[in-house]
Amino acid sequence: MKIAGFKAAAVAAGLRKKDRLDLGLIAADGPAMAAGVFTRSRVQAAPVLWSRKRLGSGQARAILVNSGQANACTGAEGLSVASKSAAAVAEALGCPADEILLASTGVIGEPLNLDALTRAVPGLAAGLSEDGLDQVSRAMMTTDTRPKTAEAEGSIGGHTFRVGGMAKGSGMIAPNMATMLSFVLTDAAVDPAALKTLLAETAEATFNAVTVDGDTSTNDTVFLLASGRAGFPPLIPGSPDLDAFAKALREVMADLARQIASDGEGATKLVTVRVAGAKSDEQAKAAAMTVANSPLVKTAFFGQDPNWGRIMMALGRSPAEFDQFKVNIDFDDVAVVRQGQQVGREEDWARVMQQPAFTVAVDLRAGPGRAEVLTCDFSHDYVKINADYRS
Amino acid sequence: MKIAGFKAAAVAAGLRKKDRLDLGLIAADGPAMAAGVFTRSRVQAAPVLWSRKRLGSGQARAILVNSGQANACTGAEGLSVASKSAAAVAEALGCPADEILLASTGVIGEPLNLDALTRAVPGLAAGLSEDGLDQVSRAMMTTDTRPKTAEAEGSIGGHTFRVGGMAKGSGMIAPNMATMLSFVLTDAAVDPAALKTLLAETAEATFNAVTVDGDTSTNDTVFLLASGRAGFPPLIPGSPDLDAFAKALREVMADLARQIASDGEGATKLVTVRVAGAKSDEQAKAAAMTVANSPLVKTAFFGQDPNWGRIMMALGRSPAEFDQFKVNIDFDDVAVVRQGQQVGREEDWARVMQQPAFTVAVDLRAGPGRAEVLTCDFSHDYVKINADYRS
Repeated sequence: MKIAGFKAAAVAAGLRKKDRLDLGLIAADGPAMAAGVFTRSRVQAAPVLWSRKRLGSGQARAILVNSGQANACTGAEGLSVASKSAAAVAEALGCPADEILLASTGVIGEPLNLDALTRAVPGLAAGLSEDGLDQVSRAMMTTDTRPKTAEAEGSIGGHTFRVGGMAKGSGMIAPNMATMLSFVLTDAAVDPAALKTLLAETAEATFNAVTVDGDTSTNDTVFLLASGRAGFPPLIPGSPDLDAFAKALREVMADLARQIASDGEGATKLVTVRVAGAKSDEQAKAAAMTVANSPLVKTAFFGQDPNWGRIMMALGRSPAEFDQFKVNIDFDDVAVVRQGQQVGREEDWARVMQQPAFTVAVDLRAGPGRAEVLTCDFSHDYVKINADYRS
Repeated sequence: MKIAGFKAAAVAAGLRKKDRLDLGLIAADGPAMAAGVFTRSRVQAAPVLWSRKRLGSGQARAILVNSGQANACTGAEGLSVASKSAAAVAEALGCPADEILLASTGVIGEPLNLDALTRAVPGLAAGLSEDGLDQVSRAMMTTDTRPKTAEAEGSIGGHTFRVGGMAKGSGMIAPNMATMLSFVLTDAAVDPAALKTLLAETAEATFNAVTVDGDTSTNDTVFLLASGRAGFPPLIPGSPDLDAFAKALREVMADLARQIASDGEGATKLVTVRVAGAKSDEQAKAAAMTVANSPLVKTAFFGQDPNWGRIMMALGRSPAEFDQFKVNIDFDDVAVVRQGQQVGREEDWARVMQQPAFTVAVDLRAGPGRAEVLTCDFSHDYVKINADYRS
């Protein structure tokens, strides 16, 4: 993946384990237009607090990401570590520290090894190259089994532009700000105000519609940086050309969201939960999320057990208002429940669930609200991975 | 367990598996004062819909419980099956069908085998005995590893009274109406209005403060029946003697709730989550429930991993309002977090988590609200049990 106007590099700084890429830097050739969305948790990591403030200007020069420690719940010391790591990058790049964005993932509460980090920064800066983005997508991984990148392109006023993104995340992925970390870069020119609105809307429809375990991180962050190198003047809010950019952005973020769900910790199934006929879109999303997060539903997915009663159970405890005797449920195109009761043959429902990916479509028949959520199953490996994550 | 005024019996009716107790009957010698609380799910089983209506009178004669099928999501046919099973019991006991309460647990959506059930009823009625209650506590089990009963006694006006309860439930136990099924009997005389209020209050503080997996059943039911045989006149709302009865009732229901949490599917740890210093009791309970239901927290309990960051993470995504830099957390009497940061030594926290039961005490330092919730860990066996519950 290459995006005009950006260089990147990654190193093994020894933040947590030896000889593992754990520190990445993405730098724009000059100040880039920038926007971000962050975790909605009340417990927010130092890099989130730092970066949120910096984005007030709508500009950024670089992103420093580490996968050793989360630098969350680390108090005043953590904030100082954040500020010092930004200063180290700023010095190496020759720009103000206020233009450096930070993202961290890893264990909560452990101090981040500032010495190791600052020692690694000059080498990182010296190693920046147009080919470095894929390395960064590896350096940000924790329990991810594979790096996640996605690309799209489009054309505005005769100029081709590219959007490229990377993401990490597999556990602790949930309703509010579903990705752990994602960085999306483009050579399009987009006014920061337009960038901000577009990013928030697209995150809601993509990353915020993915759930692995209902847990939300203290560190969730999405950054969107635009270098403007594609050659057209900045798109401003209301510009008709914004749609072409929005389409490419959505394509990249939806692709990354799908990769996160299918790489859910221990996941063996990728399941789309679609709810229609709710009283409102909000109720539809709440119902879909309740189904998608239910441990009993998710273990049934893992067991390939077409136990649709658990889906009814989850709908029943969701905030959605409906009449239980009107509900319809399909697994892909196989009718399973009509008016709250089972129809058809169990072997047909079971066949759908044996696939690696399928859709559970619920129609509450109570209104026009609809929503779609991506989830995965709950396997033995989820427990194994998370019972002993730190060792 | 024996409670004056009640007889009971259980049989293997062959509703689901052969030679397994699956049908139980508890009958009062005459009409008993009765109250009930039920699941708050929007999807409610036929026996719940049936029993809720019957309790309008404040009187009941008997409880029929089966552990074959839930008789939930079974439509008009399910309601007819419920009504016919009540009629069969009424005929055998010689009382109106309106005095028969029903409770079912098992697979959702499968039809209940009415023929097998009605064939078994005469034998059940003939076998009623004062010693039969323990048999019923076995007949109502599904994935429970052991029957759950509790007893207490007290004295009012020189008369000794007894309260005895039984419960089943280990998975699908959650915020709203935490028990699957529980029947509490007493020989005290209590006016139905007083019985109803007292049962609702006590359920909130006991069964509704237990969570295994955040899932709520379509069938959750608690019945409280009072035979009045203890010899004192019925306690009415406002009666000062009501406190003595309330105390015994609370003792029995709290004991049963604790047994449910420690028998959580695959559970190896019983954990009390106590939240103090919230803005309100509601916020405290919401925060405690978010911690108690978090898959990442629960797998850490299983792994005996003192990863307190996951508790902060769960608090952060809960609805409780607080300042992350003020939070204190203790594991039993060991300080783990002060002002949002870790204190003390990891080996001390870890030692607490190696016990089969311990307390996580959170102080949000934001107000007077407090709540306590019981939960268990999330183990390999939870996934194993639930991936293939039906086979």
